[in-house]
Amino acid sequence: MTTTTNNSFARPHLADCLPELAAFARGEQKATLVIKGGTLVSVTSGELLPNTSVAVVGTRIAYVGPFVQDMVGDETKVIDATGKYIAPGLLDGHCHIESSLLSVTEFANGVLPLGTTGGFFDPHEISNVLGLPGLRLMLDEARQTPLAAYLQVASCVPATNSEFETSGAEFGPEEVAEALSWGPDMIALGEVMNFPGVVFGDPKMIGEIQATLRAGKIVDGHYTWPSDDPRLSAYAAAGVSGCHESITKEDAAARVRLGMYAKLRRGSAWHDVEATIKAHTEMGLDSRRMVLVSDDRICSSLKEEGHMNFIVRHAIQQGVKPVTAFQMATLNTAERFGVARDVGSVTPGTIADIILLDGHLADVNVSMTIACGQVVAENGQMTTKLESFQYPDYAVNSVKIESKLTPASFEVKAPIDNGFVKTRVAEVIENNVETKEVFVDLPVKDGNLVITPESGYCKMAVFERHGRTGGSAIGVAGNVGFDRPAAIAMTVAHDSHNVLVIGNDDAVMAKAANAVIDMQGGIAVATADDMTTLPLRLAGLMSTEPYETVVRQSQDISQALVDAGCTMNYAFMTLSLIALVVIPTLHISDTGLIRVSETGFERVPLFV
Amino acid sequence: MTTTTNNSFARPHLADCLPELAAFARGEQKATLVIKGGTLVSVTSGELLPNTSVAVVGTRIAYVGPFVQDMVGDETKVIDATGKYIAPGLLDGHCHIESSLLSVTEFANGVLPLGTTGGFFDPHEISNVLGLPGLRLMLDEARQTPLAAYLQVASCVPATNSEFETSGAEFGPEEVAEALSWGPDMIALGEVMNFPGVVFGDPKMIGEIQATLRAGKIVDGHYTWPSDDPRLSAYAAAGVSGCHESITKEDAAARVRLGMYAKLRRGSAWHDVEATIKAHTEMGLDSRRMVLVSDDRICSSLKEEGHMNFIVRHAIQQGVKPVTAFQMATLNTAERFGVARDVGSVTPGTIADIILLDGHLADVNVSMTIACGQVVAENGQMTTKLESFQYPDYAVNSVKIESKLTPASFEVKAPIDNGFVKTRVAEVIENNVETKEVFVDLPVKDGNLVITPESGYCKMAVFERHGRTGGSAIGVAGNVGFDRPAAIAMTVAHDSHNVLVIGNDDAVMAKAANAVIDMQGGIAVATADDMTTLPLRLAGLMSTEPYETVVRQSQDISQALVDAGCTMNYAFMTLSLIALVVIPTLHISDTGLIRVSETGFERVPLFV
Repeated sequence: MTTTTNNSFARPHLADCLPELAAFARGEQKATLVIKGGTLVSVTSGELLPNTSVAVVGTRIAYVGPFVQDMVGDETKVIDATGKYIAPGLLDGHCHIESSLLSVTEFANGVLPLGTTGGFFDPHEISNVLGLPGLRLMLDEARQTPLAAYLQVASCVPATNSEFETSGAEFGPEEVAEALSWGPDMIALGEVMNFPGVVFGDPKMIGEIQATLRAGKIVDGHYTWPSDDPRLSAYAAAGVSGCHESITKEDAAARVRLGMYAKLRRGSAWHDVEATIKAHTEMGLDSRRMVLVSDDRICSSLKEEGHMNFIVRHAIQQGVKPVTAFQMATLNTAERFGVARDVGSVTPGTIADIILLDGHLADVNVSMTIACGQVVAENGQMTTKLESFQYPDYAVNSVKIESKLTPASFEVKAPIDNGFVKTRVAEVIENNVETKEVFVDLPVKDGNLVITPESGYCKMAVFERHGRTGGSAIGVAGNVGFDRPAAIAMTVAHDSHNVLVIGNDDAVMAKAANAVIDMQGGIAVATADDMTTLPLRLAGLMSTEPYETVVRQSQDISQALVDAGCTMNYAFMTLSLIALVVIPTLHISDTGLIRVSETGFERVPLFV
Repeated sequence: MTTTTNNSFARPHLADCLPELAAFARGEQKATLVIKGGTLVSVTSGELLPNTSVAVVGTRIAYVGPFVQDMVGDETKVIDATGKYIAPGLLDGHCHIESSLLSVTEFANGVLPLGTTGGFFDPHEISNVLGLPGLRLMLDEARQTPLAAYLQVASCVPATNSEFETSGAEFGPEEVAEALSWGPDMIALGEVMNFPGVVFGDPKMIGEIQATLRAGKIVDGHYTWPSDDPRLSAYAAAGVSGCHESITKEDAAARVRLGMYAKLRRGSAWHDVEATIKAHTEMGLDSRRMVLVSDDRICSSLKEEGHMNFIVRHAIQQGVKPVTAFQMATLNTAERFGVARDVGSVTPGTIADIILLDGHLADVNVSMTIACGQVVAENGQMTTKLESFQYPDYAVNSVKIESKLTPASFEVKAPIDNGFVKTRVAEVIENNVETKEVFVDLPVKDGNLVITPESGYCKMAVFERHGRTGGSAIGVAGNVGFDRPAAIAMTVAHDSHNVLVIGNDDAVMAKAANAVIDMQGGIAVATADDMTTLPLRLAGLMSTEPYETVVRQSQDISQALVDAGCTMNYAFMTLSLIALVVIPTLHISDTGLIRVSETGFERVPLFV
């Protein structure tokens, strides 16, 4: 992908490998790695081919077939694959690494043993915090890992605009063009969530898509209107050629019929494959334009369930032929992004990203991962220690709030002195990104709104943390579940990632918020006596700690939430979306309460 | 494909179409063309979708679905597709237009009514005669037609080198890089026939492939060693990702398993689909990497059998599911060359290259052709008159032989004065590009070799015609079939296309040769009293006359050959290959007799 990095997992261009491959063909050079005698999962032909061996020279596959004996020299690493399957390394067709809470390096440490050797990553979150430098940082770190990491430039930074929220950066067509010029591993424009803007020709969205198409790159989508709406055609006509927002088989079928790639998602909280895969298993559509993706998987999901190995297995369990399910996470994915020359199959000339599997193929039991021609993981463990990445100061000091918060920071002045006031409340919904807007009469004392643990409601507050406005806003949330004085504070607060605090006690809220500010980013769950933290030092989004540590801390946060009465599935993920103002119905940003209606966004008052 | 041409069939980049498409989505603009209510051959989903309509805005498809009524305005052309199939225009995945004997414009006139709307053309022949200017000429002419014409830069110009033959030009890595910089419609490096050079690292071939890969383009192949030879892996590893030389199902399967596209060929004389398609119909391989191609079809074959419509029908008759056969001539082809964003499916955003079909889909009965959003043919006839192309002088005056040939030009001095001399003879084989080398005792009189009509042998002579050496050579051919004094002369003489003359009477040979020289290129079949000619003014390879005229003239040439006793199938094509010195066993160039052995090429004497 790039010839500029200087590390042991660099992926030189095929053109640069030809002299070495020719020397091998002439017999002047032996293979560096040989895998002997397994059953090849041939994704190009859709077959399982027994007694197949693979010879690798450097980073690339030089030979696939039965005759490897003469290719083995004294220095050749030989792997016996008898009784095993040989398959291409798995690719994630759409993923936000930030959602794992892991750095790119630790994400690699987490997923490589699971058989993932590459992916198409949209660093949408860090881009909203750190802008192009943040995106570049992710690219530089990714290039240092064994992963075939292709990055996208986020299309919606910020998700709305500075009238409705304050992000750390703004992207337009120029930023898109610049980012896409960084190398062939800058592959696409990230999911274009502003689909109304695309359909109706918003100049910024059209400009970003034009910049992408002119650079010869891919435009990825995110479309949630009904799939039988003619505007899906308009969205596809604008050059958006893939979308991961299908939730029914009809959604997936509509996309494929319109020439898009339907990305079938199984995230931590969004379980769409079961329904969407029926476009193939029940409706019989050709599977070549179906791609399995994770979108958002928190590190504990990676640990407890798996990554693409889990999703491929899950697809097979829905009735997909195993080799077809592998195509959906290898060849289809590579073809969708135009990089099948390099990844997505075990064929000559591609980069040697290969996995070995034990037992039944349908179990997707990965026992060895080879990336870039090197064995990097075996039996679920990394066998290679990855170099650690050095982050610049600005990336680990991104929470720009100078003074401590106090209980007074969370006071809400009411329009009356004492009594009850009709208040606009955002009720969270388990397993759903949307909220419900309800109106509740809440008590006021001495001119201040009163929220107590007994009320069942929480305050929700957002403090701008990018050093731009210093603004803040407070609203009220329902259905959070806290049954004692408690609060959660976090710098993961989609998509502008300001400091979000949700709690039912001003002092506990201040304590949690200050903990997060002191850590320079992260998550803190506080009660009167306890405090559980997960530091996310990198842009306030990702940990700089090892994979196993972050998994443990993430599990601790979940437990602390449960202990405080918040028992929602993936509660942290759902709560972090309470600041995602582009989603119906009522959310909060640093500029106030934002409501999404048929006519667009509007800022609305807390008291009616 | 290009925004620089200024004609009515220009194909603007999708990015440039977005404002217009958005205006349509907003309802501010009506469709320019609407196709109502047919059954869509959906190649992306592998389905037939009834009651589907298509709306076109300018050159691009804006909508596919059931709701077109509101998209029709006063200016909209509406086509009723009730009872018809709507399919993507057919693509030829590998084709030498020169083999049709037609100019690009007349090729378009010939194939558009048959449903072909685009192709991947390798102007290998004109490149050998006119070099880069010839290739550029083909590109410029192609851009003026309604075809989605993607051109390749030939990899083997000349097929050998100046030691063995004199071509009109020589290409190396620099010429390849230059040609590929001309635009996105310069798509690939043409069939790399020098596969030994690729496998073993010949610097020129490696350099050409590197230039192509670095330009982000495709490398096309031509590999004829056995497909179970490990060197096919080496060829694939070098980045050659497609090949049309499969002649058995195992050949096709081997290519697909190694990640190549297997191009299944049905040319005028090479009938490979029947055998190679069994890789899908009998062996069960996934068809996504199988592509139907014509390679070489003479204009009379286009007229009598058809083009891609014939080949798709033929594939269906071998047992391929109709929608799968359509994929093999549309989507698979477009994906193979990375242009599925623009062609190969009827989906929003692609260019409106669409065909309508009547009756049974399996009959591939094309009744209308739409290219670039315009109806160009109906019921087998062009409905649009294509602009004629103006050729520069050098392109129509390429036969640089100053003085008339005489019977003496064909005299062969023998090493004896009178008697018999052991002579090396190239026997042509019907339906085969190879020749057989045999040794025959032939009479000598007064120091000259004597060939008479009664002998059953012919002289074969090549006169350099590119104005470079003025050289010539004479040999002896067997099995031509002439049963009276007769000769054929032609400037189509693969691959250097010097003047080739085959005959059994020196005077008749001179007459035929002079006719070709006088015409500035073409084919002449002469007997003592008769002369039949087919002028090929453009580089000595293609006619500048209309399609129907060239078909008639080509049929006349075939008939003249039959009348003179030469009854081989496609005799003219087989004879024109007698100068193709890269093919086993014995062929002739302007430098002499060239023999292909296990160790390579060698020049060999006529008399042993």
